[in-house]
Order: sequence, then C-alpha cells, then structure tokens
Amino acid sequence: MAETNLQILLRRRPQGMPAPDDFEIVETPVPEPAEGEVLVRARYLSLDPYMRGRMSDAKSYAKPVELGAVMEGQTAGEVVASRAPGFAPGDTVLGGYGWQRFSCVRPERLFKVDPQEAPLSTSLGVLGMPGLTAWVGLEDIGQPKAGETLVVSAASGAVGQVAGQIGKIRGCRVVGIAGGPRKCAFVTQELGFDACLDHHADDLAAQLDRACPDGIDVYWENVGGPVQAAVFPRLNDFGRMVMCGMIAQYNVAPGADAAGAPPGPNLGPVVRKRLRIQGFIVSDTGWPRYPAFRRQMLGWIREGRMKWREDVVQGLRNAPEAFIGLLQGRNFGKLVVAVD
Amino acid sequence: MAETNLQILLRRRPQGMPAPDDFEIVETPVPEPAEGEVLVRARYLSLDPYMRGRMSDAKSYAKPVELGAVMEGQTAGEVVASRAPGFAPGDTVLGGYGWQRFSCVRPERLFKVDPQEAPLSTSLGVLGMPGLTAWVGLEDIGQPKAGETLVVSAASGAVGQVAGQIGKIRGCRVVGIAGGPRKCAFVTQELGFDACLDHHADDLAAQLDRACPDGIDVYWENVGGPVQAAVFPRLNDFGRMVMCGMIAQYNVAPGADAAGAPPGPNLGPVVRKRLRIQGFIVSDTGWPRYPAFRRQMLGWIREGRMKWREDVVQGLRNAPEAFIGLLQGRNFGKLVVAVD
Repeated sequence: MAETNLQILLRRRPQGMPAPDDFEIVETPVPEPAEGEVLVRARYLSLDPYMRGRMSDAKSYAKPVELGAVMEGQTAGEVVASRAPGFAPGDTVLGGYGWQRFSCVRPERLFKVDPQEAPLSTSLGVLGMPGLTAWVGLEDIGQPKAGETLVVSAASGAVGQVAGQIGKIRGCRVVGIAGGPRKCAFVTQELGFDACLDHHADDLAAQLDRACPDGIDVYWENVGGPVQAAVFPRLNDFGRMVMCGMIAQYNVAPGADAAGAPPGPNLGPVVRKRLRIQGFIVSDTGWPRYPAFRRQMLGWIREGRMKWREDVVQGLRNAPEAFIGLLQGRNFGKLVVAVD
Repeated sequence: MAETNLQILLRRRPQGMPAPDDFEIVETPVPEPAEGEVLVRARYLSLDPYMRGRMSDAKSYAKPVELGAVMEGQTAGEVVASRAPGFAPGDTVLGGYGWQRFSCVRPERLFKVDPQEAPLSTSLGVLGMPGLTAWVGLEDIGQPKAGETLVVSAASGAVGQVAGQIGKIRGCRVVGIAGGPRKCAFVTQELGFDACLDHHADDLAAQLDRACPDGIDVYWENVGGPVQAAVFPRLNDFGRMVMCGMIAQYNVAPGADAAGAPPGPNLGPVVRKRLRIQGFIVSDTGWPRYPAFRRQMLGWIREGRMKWREDVVQGLRNAPEAFIGLLQGRNFGKLVVAVD
C-alpha cells in the first residue's frame, strides 16, 4: 500500500472543455482520523459528467469545488482505520470522498456494501449513483409502460445502459442513441436494446422514424443538442421527457440560460400533446431509496436481466485525462478509475 | 323567439389570423329532435382561443371542424323540446352544441345547471370550461403552495382570472401579465393580484425582477412568445410551468413544431433547477371532476373570494368578428356571445 496520499485538486476553472492544466496532482501525508471519523482508502473513483458543473462557479444545484480543493467524486474502497462505532478496518464502503487515495470521512456519509454481492466497482455504476439515477428517473418521471417506446441517449454510458435495460424489463421497445458503430453494436447485442442509432449519422431524424414506427413515449435525455432536436418532435401524446443531463452543452454553455446558450424546441407541442418535461437530480430524493434500488438491481443481475460495461482507467494520476475523454465521448461504458 | 336556426359554418381554413370571410352565416330550419335527443336553444356561446386550432387541419389533439360544418363551441341555454328521459322544456343546460341558435343534442353531452346559483353566462366562464381549466391545471401540475410566487399570463382573460385568484386563495404572491394599463388595473384592483405587468412594456424582464423578488415558483403559461422568454429564466428550483396555451403563436405557427415555429428556451435549466414543464387539455380529465369543481367555485363566489369579468357581445352574427378580436387581445374578460 502506498504510504502517501495522492490528491487531485481543482487548480483553475476551465473555459469550455477542461484541460489537464486545470487540475493539480499533489502528494500529501496520509491524514489521521479524528474522533468519530473513519480513514478510507479508495479502490475505485467514479468519473461522471456532472463533475463538469462542479468545476464552474456558475449558479447550479450544488456548490462548486473551491479552487485548490480536492475534486469531488464518489468512491468505493475500504476502511483502513476507524474511530467511529460500527466501522472496522477491512469494511468495504461507498461514499463521496473525492479524487484522492485516502480520506477521513464521517460515517453518516458512508454506505457499507457487501463485496460478495457484486464486484466493488459496480457500486459506482450499475449498483451506484448512475444506476440509481436511471431507476429514480424512470420511476418518478418516465414511468414506461409495456408496449411503449423508450428512447435513451448516451445509451452505452453509465446511466443510459441501465435506463434502457429497465425499459426492456418493463416491456418497452427500447431504442438507444450512441456514438459510433462499436457502441451501437454493444447496446443491441450485449444490452439487448431493440435498436441503436449512431448520433454521428446525418439522417438521425429519418433513422428515428424507422426505429420508432409508433413514435416515442419516453425520452431519456442525457445529451441535448441535435439529438434532442431530432427526438422532441417525435414524442407521442402524453410523452415524457426525463431530463437527466445535457452533456452536449456542458462545455459551451456552463450556465445554460446564460447568453449564448443555443435555443431549445418551441414548446407549442407541450400543450397540444400534453407532454411532461421534467428534470431531476438523483441526490434530491435518491439516496434514502438506495437500499430498495440495490435489492431490486441485484435481483435483476442474478436473473441475468441487467448487464453492464465498465471502462476502467488504471491509476489516479490519469483521472483528469480520462475525465476530459468522458466529456468528449471517448469512454465506452461506465468510466471508473482504479486507484493505485 | 326566432323561428329559424342561425348557424355559423367554417367556410375555409384561415392562413394566419382568421378573417370574417373564413366563416359563413346561414339561416336554416329549426331541427327536429330524434328519439333520445333534446332540442336546445342557446342563450350564450363561449368564444375561446382553442377554437383557432379547430379551424386548422394541422395535427392536433382534437379533430378539426370540417369545411362547411358548424363551428364547435360550448354553449349555455335551455331545453325547448325533449325526447330524452330526464330533460324537460325549460331546463337550463350546458353543453358543446356549437355556434348556432338551435341544436339537437344527446343528453349524455349535457350538464343541467341551476340558474339560481349564478348567472347563466358564468357556466361558460368562471363556472365553466375556463374555470375548470384553471382549477385542473393548478391542482394537477402547478400545485401552488402558500408563500410561493405564481405568475399568470393573459391574467385578465377567462382562464387567467381564475388561475390567479385560486393562487391568492392558496396563499401565493400572484403576479399577472396582461395587455395594457386598463387590464392591469382590473387585475390588481378588482381581482386582487399583488401586481400586474403590461406585456407591451419593453422592459418586462426588469419588471418581473421587481415584482417577483423571490423568483417564480409557478408559471401559468397562456401565451408563449416574448412573455415566456422573460419568465422562463426566472423560475426557481423545482418550478412548475403549467402549459395551458400559447396564444401568441396560434396564428404564426398553427402546427407548432412545423418549420418556422420560433425556437423555445434552451432546456438546460430544466435539469439544473429540476423544473417541470407540463401541458394539459382540460377535456382529458376535467369533466368528471366538474361537480366537485363547481361546488368549490360556488363556495368561493359566495364568500366573495372569486370574482370575474365578462365581455358580452350581442348577437350570434357578431361571433366571427369577436373571435378574431379575442386572438388579437381586444376582448377584456371572458368573451361570450349573447345569442339572439
């Protein structure tokens, strides 16, 4: 085990796409847990698109990371030392302890997970925040019913994979949208979606018409931009648009209503078709439901109905580069860093 | 009583703003009720913005009026002859019997109303479809809570009047938006809204900032266009946008997602602020709730908490001109035609 801590700090706020120089990698002493704290060593760090928002000081739903502070993020790891009741060295825990090897955490911010149930890294993906996001968003907003058509953007990504497979379990026709033929093949052949369209294609609208002959009832929105523009007019009466994210504009319009944000769809069809367009953030209501979610997801995994793909990057020092690749769509599957 | 029927037909589909020549006024014999039907004489005809949609053959939630057919509309009147059980001459009834003096109606399409409870014309306004629209939209989507700020567009109109007053009853700060100082004065002085802004003003955004110091929690959307563009960025976290109509574009973009519809807001804030944007049509779920709505509204009227203003046009032959004025915002209050 390394005897120093390794931390990745936010050095400056990016303009547009983040650059490696926006981060700073430092070695520091391993911290000592105070009374009531647990010292945790991260094994996996989750990299997720929302982190781009935390790098900016535009008004958002969560406070930005301060300059010079450790980047925020979910991690899965193990307890090294404990001065808190209920936690002992060797316990496997999930928590938001940031882009760093070691950290001292208060136990109310930790979930104990059983590493026998599934590989530890899945607690950051299919069994973690991204899976919970898909589950909560479909349960609360999308509400897909058997026979309906669900379209999922960023379909091979951490959230999209799960959202589409839940749609299949619910009896929907599920059509993914992903970047490139390799991802599309994975989405149909491995995840079992009914079709997957390449958003690089210049005839996405026509492809949607062919793939969704009965229109679209639920749209899982992860991307915004031209994909949203193609899907929106194809929503059926009483269609639901689950607004999970709009990664296509995270680097062009950090405050999305700031001057310069590209316009969106005319909302006339919202009245005429009785559409519901609703955004959510998993942390608002998701975590108290985590145990129920995890139970259901583990059941689906055991039954072979829920698959996943991870893109594992070795070494914490490579996290900035991997995160930039995530914003560019270069990852393939749930992006995690194996912390050395 | 006139001895002929008077009917207003749709002669041709308007391009943009309807013109008087798009209608045809005909005199025909008074129809004879078939077995199971009721002959009704209209006393009041309701004119409402949705009728613009029925004149167009663009895809919509309801079938268009056919060329040469009687224009559709809600009317309040009395039974002249009955061949249906439960209805007798002299009964006062509310129903969708169109722009005509006499019609034969099946009883399942009629509501009996008690003319002692309120003036008959109110069954087309505060106690009719517009009032029900306000009530259903706030109950199902807007859900205004005490202390929240509700902004109502077309505030002096048939639906807006009621929506804002329900907001006051619920304990909200209510800010109207209406066209011109006369309507604005009515909205604050007669209806009791906290403020009313003139949408003709060129600094509507700045006026909204002053009138809504705590932001906007619920937006009752009746108009679209620049008013929507000014309100949308001011919605608070967890804000709701009740999409009732977008009259500003009914004549420029009949099929609102057709090429040429003006763009709408970038939807990034929907995620970040967890907004809900939802459209509804009162006829989907409203009428089974009409008795409960009417009971509550009559109570509020008796308590002096619900006021209304009507704009009564004399004579069915004047309906086309009055309807065109409605689309141009020339009416002041709920527009009804007193059928001669």
